[in-house]
Amino acid sequence: MNDEEYMAIALKLAEGTTGQTSPNPVVGAIVVKENQIVGIGAHLKAGTPHAEVHAIQMAGSNSKGGTLYVTLEPCDHFGKTSPCSEIVINSGITKVFVATMDPNPKVAGKGIEKIRGAGIEVEVGLLEQEAKEQNKFYIHNISKKYPYITLKSATSLDGKIATTTGESKWISGELAREDVHKLRHEHDAILVGINTILKDDPSLTTRLRNGGKSPIRIILDTHLRIPKDARVISDQEAPTWVITGTDIDEKKKQLLEHAGIKILNIKKTKIEIKELLEILWEADIRSLLVEGGAAVNASFLNAQLFQQVIVYLAPKLIGGKVAPTSFAGEGIEKINDAIPLKIKSVQKIGDDLKVIAIPDLHLSCKFCKTCRNVNGCSISSTSKFAMNTTHYW
Amino acid sequence: MNDEEYMAIALKLAEGTTGQTSPNPVVGAIVVKENQIVGIGAHLKAGTPHAEVHAIQMAGSNSKGGTLYVTLEPCDHFGKTSPCSEIVINSGITKVFVATMDPNPKVAGKGIEKIRGAGIEVEVGLLEQEAKEQNKFYIHNISKKYPYITLKSATSLDGKIATTTGESKWISGELAREDVHKLRHEHDAILVGINTILKDDPSLTTRLRNGGKSPIRIILDTHLRIPKDARVISDQEAPTWVITGTDIDEKKKQLLEHAGIKILNIKKTKIEIKELLEILWEADIRSLLVEGGAAVNASFLNAQLFQQVIVYLAPKLIGGKVAPTSFAGEGIEKINDAIPLKIKSVQKIGDDLKVIAIPDLHLSCKFCKTCRNVNGCSISSTSKFAMNTTHYW
Repeated sequence: MNDEEYMAIALKLAEGTTGQTSPNPVVGAIVVKENQIVGIGAHLKAGTPHAEVHAIQMAGSNSKGGTLYVTLEPCDHFGKTSPCSEIVINSGITKVFVATMDPNPKVAGKGIEKIRGAGIEVEVGLLEQEAKEQNKFYIHNISKKYPYITLKSATSLDGKIATTTGESKWISGELAREDVHKLRHEHDAILVGINTILKDDPSLTTRLRNGGKSPIRIILDTHLRIPKDARVISDQEAPTWVITGTDIDEKKKQLLEHAGIKILNIKKTKIEIKELLEILWEADIRSLLVEGGAAVNASFLNAQLFQQVIVYLAPKLIGGKVAPTSFAGEGIEKINDAIPLKIKSVQKIGDDLKVIAIPDLHLSCKFCKTCRNVNGCSISSTSKFAMNTTHYW
Repeated sequence: MNDEEYMAIALKLAEGTTGQTSPNPVVGAIVVKENQIVGIGAHLKAGTPHAEVHAIQMAGSNSKGGTLYVTLEPCDHFGKTSPCSEIVINSGITKVFVATMDPNPKVAGKGIEKIRGAGIEVEVGLLEQEAKEQNKFYIHNISKKYPYITLKSATSLDGKIATTTGESKWISGELAREDVHKLRHEHDAILVGINTILKDDPSLTTRLRNGGKSPIRIILDTHLRIPKDARVISDQEAPTWVITGTDIDEKKKQLLEHAGIKILNIKKTKIEIKELLEILWEADIRSLLVEGGAAVNASFLNAQLFQQVIVYLAPKLIGGKVAPTSFAGEGIEKINDAIPLKIKSVQKIGDDLKVIAIPDLHLSCKFCKTCRNVNGCSISSTSKFAMNTTHYW
């Protein structure tokens, strides 16, 4: 096998752990000696050994003279584990392939520098695109200090999320709905508006064939209207946080808190998305799946606070002038004020289409105005990374 | 080159003439002798020689002992030209590949039978799928005696055809809009509602870089509200037909007729799509591109009278509860009453997606209820043709 094939295996290992390592990145590593795999590792959970450590341990004395393929730059700082850079150096490995550098300022080239300083050859950038894509949550988190936001919707081919009477079960096919459960497994938290709870009483848990990690369930509920017997309150399948404004029934709040529900009281009459996300960031939410409804989606759209949009398009026509669409709200007057996206991928899932799109900075720089770290667009238009994967703002 | 490659050339020739042969099918033919192309032909226009005739004429004496590749079964009847079956037999050709049979009852196997009867080997079915796809208008026409209907819409990724104020220029990118002009070139006629004329005053002509055939412009205008200075009335770029009900200003009608406009008066207060299509069929319209607006699209949806839906999805989000979508009307109450489609293809055109979907008979047989020729679904669920291309109802 060639270097790219070995790195592809390491990437596959990392991909498999998506959803279980937050707030840490996913990382895969393998050690190869004389064209044989002698060590395999992945980072499984925050606070447990890093991928390189597992792989080098498994390789044992075979590390000597071997090659390490690792999807993210080895760390160089003492955290919950010793610096991987030292472990690599002490292992006797003579060559290291790194798919992409770690943007974490505590690492950011220092790991590579240390290893090179010990006379070990290091090559950076093998399958870099793929490596950045699978750690898009982490890279966004590190560079923006903000949760990564996914807006998800499921519509008919004519853009309807329900019929004129509000019936929405089921627009998407079974496989597309299963795919949504994968998204839930991958994100730290899921967010819906109170109307979705009142209308559908969903559980918002992850129900995959082999289980899966349920996200923290976050309900936007300015006036604390949530029923005490709502599934997300009573089922105890996953933590539930209710975000409220100032105007709420204090007694109900206490009652819910006694039932183990976290009430986050925002000291405003209306919940601002930007402020909400800051609060969620402080509460260690690193990725958020927004599942609507239409009004909540519109709030995120208007705040221009999202990193990707995932639309499942079902092959059916619903029609109806008043049948609802995925983004409600006030809307815009001018086409030029529409939020420009870039189609990243289209996939057939069962009979449905899954379209992933990301904000497109290069069509209009309106996103730069809200860019939190820079005064203009920080990514050049010729950057392969920016064009093909994600733009961080 | 092998047989498939030769047939692919013949198909390409036929494809190039799409839009110029109606009501006839598109047909391409080549004659090959000793692995060299010696004759090339395509049917260029109704009333002119068939593809085989051109190809055999070009081949001349080289036809003797040669092989003919033709995309549609040679005809066996005297029409505006002599039967191709006889021309093939007399040419000295010794083998014929036919991509697909001609469903026209005047041909329907008789051409092949005649040729085989003369001792010439005939193989049917080489690249049959492709051949049927490129003649889908014709096959539908012959089997259903009804125009082939394409519903086209252009929306944002969230299903909007305009902003809350009705601005719609331009949702799609330049290349997608150019693709729409190709659709206009390919269809006999284009249809819009009077509101589209009043709002946008479109020309509805075909404006491709190299020109193109403009379709007959059909305006649904129950009360003859069309302004005398509307582009479709005054520009004389293509024929314009206005479809009205009974309640109209007779003087205005005469005035428009004097200006060369055809007024089709349906003796009803409301225009029924089914009746309209029967009238258009009688008036030799074999394919119709429906370009909306939302109310007109909904009429075709509700009548369940269409063969394909083409949606151009632009990578942008418009939002807005009242921003219009592609299918308006009353809508439906139950998701199960949605019109089931099958995604046929997805293509990236510039930055946009082009999704082609067809009615899916196999999910629900509601289309069969309106099937005009049969009592139930006439196409078995295992038929490759029905699954992958089009269902005729």
